[in-house]
Amino acid sequence: MNQVTFPVIGRVENGIREPGPLEEFSGITSVIEVFAEYAEGLYRIEEHEYVDILFHFHRARGYDLVTRTYNGEIKGVFASRSPRRPAGIGVTTVRLEKREGNRLWVKGLDAIDGTPVLDIKPAVNYFSEEERRIIQPKRR
Amino acid sequence: MNQVTFPVIGRVENGIREPGPLEEFSGITSVIEVFAEYAEGLYRIEEHEYVDILFHFHRARGYDLVTRTYNGEIKGVFASRSPRRPAGIGVTTVRLEKREGNRLWVKGLDAIDGTPVLDIKPAVNYFSEEERRIIQPKRR
Repeated sequence: MNQVTFPVIGRVENGIREPGPLEEFSGITSVIEVFAEYAEGLYRIEEHEYVDILFHFHRARGYDLVTRTYNGEIKGVFASRSPRRPAGIGVTTVRLEKREGNRLWVKGLDAIDGTPVLDIKPAVNYFSEEERRIIQPKRR
Repeated sequence: MNQVTFPVIGRVENGIREPGPLEEFSGITSVIEVFAEYAEGLYRIEEHEYVDILFHFHRARGYDLVTRTYNGEIKGVFASRSPRRPAGIGVTTVRLEKREGNRLWVKGLDAIDGTPVLDIKPAVNYFSEEERRIIQPKRR
């Protein structure tokens, strides 16, 4: 079977009804409600300043393999971050502002209200060795 | 239905048979074979130096909501990047070294041989404004 099924572990609450450009989301704080059955999995997450949110582009319908990006370029879907893609999974690194029980306040999530959340992970900066040497001291 | 199904779009080839610590993968070059039906989606991907690979932790069985991390800490699964998690999706930013047709050579992918690939996206550095100001000029 060339497909895989994953559970939804939570939901986005931010009152935003329609998708828009990334910039519109950069200042927005969203609440992620993690379903009660998964809440224990948040233990010590508040020690992380940045987390990756994996979510389902649940409003996207279909996709084109070659697509026009938000800035008008023609690119393959894998050379774009379009929500219309074969596996409609969004990944965004956000700032974790606060946790209260099973609810996380995160800044910069480009997902609309009601978006199904698939996973949450502490963020890692994978950028190059040289860039890491510059960044690392600032994060301690 | 609180679950979502996604297609597999490709497969990892690197000859690595068993999972190991992240460091062991940092110097490894893997080939991602994108299935022919999705190959057109790679158009212009070679313009990106770094890409995010989303893949299925297909060998992981079950999960614990609270887990011991690779360095011995007790943490919630969402405060770890353990492969044993409710939605077993890995996300790793890798360096794109080369493309030949539907095959990508990528460096630093922490996935074993045969791993199903779910998605490929151009990488974005989401780290803080101040960190971005330091990094951006180096990337032009």
